Amino acid sequence: MSARAGIVVTGTEVLNGEIADQNGPWVAARLLERSVDVAHTTICGDRPADMTAQLRFLADHGVDLIVTTGGLGPTADDLTVATVADFCDRPLHTDAALLDEIAAIIRGWGRYPDELPASVTASIAKQALVPDGAQPISPTGTAPGLAIPAADGRPAILILPGPPRELQGMWPDALTAAPIAAVLARADDLEHQRMRAFGLSEADLAHTLQRAELTLARFSTLEVTTCIRGGELDISTRFPRAEEHTYLELKQLLQQAHPREVFSPDGTTLDDLLAEALAGTTIATAESCTGGMVAARLTNRPGSSSYVLGGIVSYANSVKTGVLGVPAALIDELGAVSEPVAAAMADGARRVTGADIAVSTSGIAGPGGAVAGKPVGTVCFGLAMAGRETTTVTRRFPGDRALVRTLSTTFALHLVRQALAAA
Amino acid sequence: MSARAGIVVTGTEVLNGEIADQNGPWVAARLLERSVDVAHTTICGDRPADMTAQLRFLADHGVDLIVTTGGLGPTADDLTVATVADFCDRPLHTDAALLDEIAAIIRGWGRYPDELPASVTASIAKQALVPDGAQPISPTGTAPGLAIPAADGRPAILILPGPPRELQGMWPDALTAAPIAAVLARADDLEHQRMRAFGLSEADLAHTLQRAELTLARFSTLEVTTCIRGGELDISTRFPRAEEHTYLELKQLLQQAHPREVFSPDGTTLDDLLAEALAGTTIATAESCTGGMVAARLTNRPGSSSYVLGGIVSYANSVKTGVLGVPAALIDELGAVSEPVAAAMADGARRVTGADIAVSTSGIAGPGGAVAGKPVGTVCFGLAMAGRETTTVTRRFPGDRALVRTLSTTFALHLVRQALAAA
Repeated sequence: MSARAGIVVTGTEVLNGEIADQNGPWVAARLLERSVDVAHTTICGDRPADMTAQLRFLADHGVDLIVTTGGLGPTADDLTVATVADFCDRPLHTDAALLDEIAAIIRGWGRYPDELPASVTASIAKQALVPDGAQPISPTGTAPGLAIPAADGRPAILILPGPPRELQGMWPDALTAAPIAAVLARADDLEHQRMRAFGLSEADLAHTLQRAELTLARFSTLEVTTCIRGGELDISTRFPRAEEHTYLELKQLLQQAHPREVFSPDGTTLDDLLAEALAGTTIATAESCTGGMVAARLTNRPGSSSYVLGGIVSYANSVKTGVLGVPAALIDELGAVSEPVAAAMADGARRVTGADIAVSTSGIAGPGGAVAGKPVGTVCFGLAMAGRETTTVTRRFPGDRALVRTLSTTFALHLVRQALAAA
Repeated sequence: MSARAGIVVTGTEVLNGEIADQNGPWVAARLLERSVDVAHTTICGDRPADMTAQLRFLADHGVDLIVTTGGLGPTADDLTVATVADFCDRPLHTDAALLDEIAAIIRGWGRYPDELPASVTASIAKQALVPDGAQPISPTGTAPGLAIPAADGRPAILILPGPPRELQGMWPDALTAAPIAAVLARADDLEHQRMRAFGLSEADLAHTLQRAELTLARFSTLEVTTCIRGGELDISTRFPRAEEHTYLELKQLLQQAHPREVFSPDGTTLDDLLAEALAGTTIATAESCTGGMVAARLTNRPGSSSYVLGGIVSYANSVKTGVLGVPAALIDELGAVSEPVAAAMADGARRVTGADIAVSTSGIAGPGGAVAGKPVGTVCFGLAMAGRETTTVTRRFPGDRALVRTLSTTFALHLVRQALAAA
């Protein structure tokens, strides 16, 4: 048996492209982890007729579960519960326990020491409306989630709030709600595994996969998808749990074909690998074209303060010379985008912060700034490490300013990973 | 007359939540600019049956235009053209001119000095397949776009490639392709305007909008949506061009009600306003909890090198004291997350970089690190400016580590904007 799901993301701002949806991808990834296949994601605005059409579409195409996100707020344009209730032919009733629960949450804010104002009690009354037969899920903000059992040929429906924190906070409870647990129990026993490679082209991987197809007897049981993301190549494979041996054969084949490139055979992210490799080592950055992105990415991780000392964003040459001690003559002679300057930046970052290892970036992110022999996308990197000679490398990245900066950031972190692995 | 569109985003990685889709939002925003209303966006994987179902759904719900993104690559799982051709009952034929055009592009790479290998000519042959009656749009990578006229009750269909750069590069040509131009000509004359506010709650805005509803005679002609985004409140309004006077009345009313909060009455972004305000002034950063995000955001703009000197990511206290000159005694006594330390950081950033203005952040992004009286989310900011006393402020932000860092970054930039406005 298997289970298929559809996701309905609501929100005019999402539909109009004004904000990026975080919920659809998050829910899809969580469902896949539970071996529920996502067949369709649809995005609708605040028009009930459009939402009803999408619910009908998903139900007609045989999904076992619909997850909706958003539209649970107290204002008039938040119509998800009423629209879904109507779609399921389930009249709404006020849930007295929810009424109390939401009121208690709002009182807990301490903003209304006396009686709740009428506008607030009206909002609470709206958010405590529940379709008959639905199971409420305790709010993580003020809006409860709702789990509606499959019935009359309609799939089970899970209604979740729009703010990502609220949605994600509610997820564990949502999975155990009876109507949803019933769907999960039917899900196929599918595995999902990932490898990550760096410095490997899609074409070269495709060539290796063609070879795998010829040599692995049961290759066709694996569903392999590849995806270039931020300069890395992700190799994602889904397979029935019984075919794990086939997947392990593929994994071995890929690792043997591309031993340097497949840096993460089990899908661990670069950031996780780096955090592990940096245990007991301190790091600093010296950034020009990436302007702080390398430091920001390193410090994105909780606990990074145990190995990140900091960094210098030396965007202006005066900061390269004044703070990092790069010789002005070097910049005058070779330009800021040169390997000797990148080396001096990395050395300078180690010197002024006292870090064990430092990485530097100096490049032309564009759109302006290209000079003869150094087109837009040219970036020099430096890597300084205690007890070793400082190394440098130059790369030319494709794309616009944002892409050059992103690819440079990933490249810089891979340099650190490789240096630590060789240590 | 008006026009409605549907967007079909293809890609297993997008559907599975592994990568964030950039194309759907981008296309939606561009269509809205042309007064084409987006009714639905749907996301499908690489299964032709699911894509056909989505095309059918959109056609059945009366859209005038379907835009598809992705699935135009040379590999076997790129099925968009064949699936759409089948949906439209339009047989595929090889377009000889396209064949030459794509071959010329690939030869231009210089990777194949002699004859093109068979695998490459096979890829070209696939990408030069065109449904009968469709108008090709010149490739910006190697895949052409395709514009298919509305016919037999089916909407016009615009097929675009998946890589955002290719899609965006092709857009101007796509709009002038006859089948698409015909749809645009029917689009309503709708305007879309935006204001941006900072420090204004949705509840307070809702209250003001209720007042507007009572005082503006033709308020109901405006479609107002609000959206909290990265700590700012966006107020987005669509209206028929003939109702511009009503929109101007609303704009005036909101500006009068919230003169400090509505920082962008015409929708100009904070980043654009800052770039303008920084002309002739140099800026530096001193970042602890934001770890480089403020500098990264400032340098995200082309041309920012004319005002950004750089910054210090002083994540460790040793960098705060050693590089920025924050007195160690101050940190010992009050803790790094304190207004005097934030002030000393901002002063230090100005001193070591020579910048006219500097902003600093020092806070507890979480999940760990909370101390008595300083819960997770507590962030101190400093603002140092030539000829003025350094000011500080403390805020407590909600959310997880990523949100606290993002909100802190936005807050720091608003501090700079406000300081420059008061100068």
